[in-house]
Amino acid sequence: MITSTQNPRIKHLLLLQQKSAQRRADSLFVVEGRREVEHCLAAGFTIRTAFVCKEICPLPQPLLGGGGPEVIPVSPNVYERIAYRSGTEGIVAVVETRQRKLSDLRLSASPLIVVLESVEKPGNLGAVLRSADAAGADAVIVCDPLTDLYNPNLIRSAVGALFTVPCVACSTEECIAFCKEKGIQILTAQLQDSSLYYDTSMTGPTAIVMGTEATGLTEQWRQAADAHIRIPMLGRLDSLNVSVSAAILLFEAVRQRQGR
Amino acid sequence: MITSTQNPRIKHLLLLQQKSAQRRADSLFVVEGRREVEHCLAAGFTIRTAFVCKEICPLPQPLLGGGGPEVIPVSPNVYERIAYRSGTEGIVAVVETRQRKLSDLRLSASPLIVVLESVEKPGNLGAVLRSADAAGADAVIVCDPLTDLYNPNLIRSAVGALFTVPCVACSTEECIAFCKEKGIQILTAQLQDSSLYYDTSMTGPTAIVMGTEATGLTEQWRQAADAHIRIPMLGRLDSLNVSVSAAILLFEAVRQRQGR
Repeated sequence: MITSTQNPRIKHLLLLQQKSAQRRADSLFVVEGRREVEHCLAAGFTIRTAFVCKEICPLPQPLLGGGGPEVIPVSPNVYERIAYRSGTEGIVAVVETRQRKLSDLRLSASPLIVVLESVEKPGNLGAVLRSADAAGADAVIVCDPLTDLYNPNLIRSAVGALFTVPCVACSTEECIAFCKEKGIQILTAQLQDSSLYYDTSMTGPTAIVMGTEATGLTEQWRQAADAHIRIPMLGRLDSLNVSVSAAILLFEAVRQRQGR
Repeated sequence: MITSTQNPRIKHLLLLQQKSAQRRADSLFVVEGRREVEHCLAAGFTIRTAFVCKEICPLPQPLLGGGGPEVIPVSPNVYERIAYRSGTEGIVAVVETRQRKLSDLRLSASPLIVVLESVEKPGNLGAVLRSADAAGADAVIVCDPLTDLYNPNLIRSAVGALFTVPCVACSTEECIAFCKEKGIQILTAQLQDSSLYYDTSMTGPTAIVMGTEATGLTEQWRQAADAHIRIPMLGRLDSLNVSVSAAILLFEAVRQRQGR
């Protein structure tokens, strides 16, 4: 059992949590909590090491499977240091990253995809993934190849959706070419020259493309669009949170696809 | 000009930011940023004191009006201490709280209201207010009379919507009686015995009632409901963020009310 927060394994874990450069260098990231670890395993990720604190929460044996990862018991004080949530979970796992490409995506007959042109805050991407999971979307694509999909704030706000919804980072050019090749209509969320979103059909293969709250979408996407859509803003403020916008648009697609 | 973070006025400001007991005792709260201060003034709140840092952002004279609040210049180091955002705004204001009651609400011909049975995190209530503003909702009601509507996390995540959407805290009994008296149908968001939300009419006066992510709604609300509605969960996770759920339901009401 590790009882010191100065233990080299613990120090390495903390580096993986804090530094994206460390995650990149080691191709490892950190997942906390039972439910997240379950979703992570179900999605086929490989857990390298599981740090567990039996005093906080006895680990159910089947969770990590037989012949699974190295399991390292830690004392409550060490767990306190490595866990973000106030410790009712008892497990923090080090997991191997995966670089998913557009060509790895397995799409349904009539795909529904969210495209984010860039990500202002990792927590926002996590929240979009959560909304995408609920709406049964096929994938979330981020048009910035350097996006760190394994940021702890992203993983936290996704509450598992990073493992249930395929998420790919690529360039804008690649993403546009992908949509065109697959016959997926591109709907850009923008105010100018736009229709109300509920007047636009989303029953066919659809990519909903959103820019940042601060700067909106680039010209490249506006040009590539099959249609421009907007959510009516009926109050006094001028924008919605990106995960809220994504959810409104995705669930309109759900409604239409249910024939309502 | 105040140049020391140990100045008693600055210490009092920090207490107002940090302690709800202080806010209650003084009937004061803190608003940061130009846009928020503008919305706050437009909503008829009274600004007691404005701390401004001209080095960071010169204050446009009309913002605070003539005969307005006491304006206290502060140095950049003091502003750094009192501001949450990394200082492109230059204004932090101390504002008088208002206790709004249900009887103060002025409702439209066909009101659209969000009711939260309780609030897990103040930031969630702020995000719900932001969604409610966008959908043009009449009010947000929180069924916990002790809710601190002036929590800094709430104000931050509302990005001004605390001032554009009337928000009232009251008891569940009061809220149910209010809805019944005003002829407002009660739609509770719950899984059991529920219809899909887009199969339920929201064109008439409507209150959308939501419980917490953790525990859902109490029996009292379920019993009072005219209908139970649910958002279909098509993924692997079992819940949505409350502000996301509120937005999906509110914008369905918007869509129906536009005759779509």
